[in-house]
Amino acid sequence: MSQEAREQAVLAAVRERRQQVNDAIDEDLPMAEPERLYEASRYILEAGGKRLRPAVLLLTAEALSDVDAADAEYRAFPDLNDGEVDVMSAAVSIEVIQSFTLIHDDIMDDDDLRRGVPAVHREYDTETAILAGDTLYSKAFEIMLQTGAPPERTLRAVQTLAETCTHICEGQALDIDFETRGDVVTDEYLDMVELKTAVLYAAAATLPALLLSADEETIEALYNYGVKVGQAFQIQDDVLDLTVPSEELGKQRGSDLAEHKKTIITLHAEEHGVDVEGLLDADDPEDVTDAEVEAAVQRLRDVGSIQYASDLAEDLVAEGKAHLDVLPENEARHRLEQIADYLIERGY
Amino acid sequence: MSQEAREQAVLAAVRERRQQVNDAIDEDLPMAEPERLYEASRYILEAGGKRLRPAVLLLTAEALSDVDAADAEYRAFPDLNDGEVDVMSAAVSIEVIQSFTLIHDDIMDDDDLRRGVPAVHREYDTETAILAGDTLYSKAFEIMLQTGAPPERTLRAVQTLAETCTHICEGQALDIDFETRGDVVTDEYLDMVELKTAVLYAAAATLPALLLSADEETIEALYNYGVKVGQAFQIQDDVLDLTVPSEELGKQRGSDLAEHKKTIITLHAEEHGVDVEGLLDADDPEDVTDAEVEAAVQRLRDVGSIQYASDLAEDLVAEGKAHLDVLPENEARHRLEQIADYLIERGY
Repeated sequence: MSQEAREQAVLAAVRERRQQVNDAIDEDLPMAEPERLYEASRYILEAGGKRLRPAVLLLTAEALSDVDAADAEYRAFPDLNDGEVDVMSAAVSIEVIQSFTLIHDDIMDDDDLRRGVPAVHREYDTETAILAGDTLYSKAFEIMLQTGAPPERTLRAVQTLAETCTHICEGQALDIDFETRGDVVTDEYLDMVELKTAVLYAAAATLPALLLSADEETIEALYNYGVKVGQAFQIQDDVLDLTVPSEELGKQRGSDLAEHKKTIITLHAEEHGVDVEGLLDADDPEDVTDAEVEAAVQRLRDVGSIQYASDLAEDLVAEGKAHLDVLPENEARHRLEQIADYLIERGY
Repeated sequence: MSQEAREQAVLAAVRERRQQVNDAIDEDLPMAEPERLYEASRYILEAGGKRLRPAVLLLTAEALSDVDAADAEYRAFPDLNDGEVDVMSAAVSIEVIQSFTLIHDDIMDDDDLRRGVPAVHREYDTETAILAGDTLYSKAFEIMLQTGAPPERTLRAVQTLAETCTHICEGQALDIDFETRGDVVTDEYLDMVELKTAVLYAAAATLPALLLSADEETIEALYNYGVKVGQAFQIQDDVLDLTVPSEELGKQRGSDLAEHKKTIITLHAEEHGVDVEGLLDADDPEDVTDAEVEAAVQRLRDVGSIQYASDLAEDLVAEGKAHLDVLPENEARHRLEQIADYLIERGY
């Protein structure tokens, strides 16, 4: 299958499930009083988003139970012991957590825009944005408790959710720490990315296995799939920031570099003697020209840092996909493999 | 028993359990990496606090299981079916949630001090304070999962925790809404206080009943005890802000009034024709004199608003205590009654 055909298949698979996920978000997180709080809590969820993590979760459920997408009733999904589980609630819970982290991250980074609309602390105010995130946080737990899975399995799911949230906070704290540290190495960066970004993919892939009563080997393999694919996703983001033209990227190309943000690429370059801080030297990251960015990127290319990052992302995807061996061979498993490939092949 | 003797008994009961709660916090929420994040997360917990909610929780457990404080092993507490439950984890979880709300509330209110030390966003920074609160939030769920209670009971406890957090957010949002609304009535204020403050007391009183397998009638009665007592606690706070001299209060007497904060007292006065906004008119709430405060308070006294609040708090405490009938008659139950009385008798 060509790269383009694969991309089309992945986007179709995600799109196919998106409307159902959106409907489920409306059901599981309806408007309530106080209105302004719930409007703010739902604002980023309503602004869009591919629902990639819910798609991974639903596809994993389909793959595990060998159910065709056309027949899938996610609210009453066959578990591996003749029971039924509402895996859609778990998918909503994960998307709600993702949304909470976006709202709080945007406050922390003082970002103005998210999904093409003002960030919640800009559209409303910081107080409301903090509270909206806090509300989504507890709602995600309430929703995770609604799957109807056996109590022991539900407890494992809640435990996974809680640990995932702790890890995301730890990863975000490490990311902030890195900004003021001069001695960060690539391995530490990968650990940070695992905590900040990859564990939520890992949770998405693991939760159906937990809820549908898969065995421990399967649970562990799916966790590793999520971690590797999530790490690859973040590394590809770092590569794209340098290699995709600004107009396609929707923001200034090379902005990470101009803001002196540490990425796997800059860390590799530093380890190979490049003065990364001196590569792009502008008071305002918006002031750098494309020519300056191109010269900086060429320096990173010359020292092999971009190739290193691309190779690493490719290795991680290969590792991730290998873990899918625990799943039956079916279309959903094939889509999960394609999603892994897509994450490092996508243009932006 | 005199008021003073009762106060001494309550403070002794709380103090008796405080060291054990503090030790348990160290065990259940140890320092971890990233260090700065965990230091910030533990900062307010280490700064002090009476541990009143954990004391209510532990006393409720003692009362339910008819265990003497001297014999109580909170980590292996007898449930009502010959099992053992770590009720201390539930107590820690509740205190951790309380601490998370304090950290985020201080950011929202831009308060400088908490428990005599700088607020977390002052001692560290806003980013770290948001993250510290978020970390405590998930840790509270992780800790609540450690009680060793049967799965169904643990799920109920987690559900209670999640709903409690949602309610606290809703209450805080209502409180913020009230600042810009001119038509708030006393009943709405009581509902807000139930959500923002009282549900955490209700959770503290209910969780042992859930975890130790008490019957539904007992669970409901203890919930109502917590709600009524929690509401009374907040109303008494409103009264104290007006009636206790600044030096005892640790802040300017009448500061709520000067900041035009709505309380049950100002709402009652408004309902009785007082122009509350005009009572204390200073650009800076710190600039009001004690004489001005006294004149304003006298106006509130004259119209019966302070008496109304005191009577209401007293009624709520009486209602709350009546719900303790479901408990066996023992010393712990007696202490829970005394705590209810103490909350409205305390000077500050």
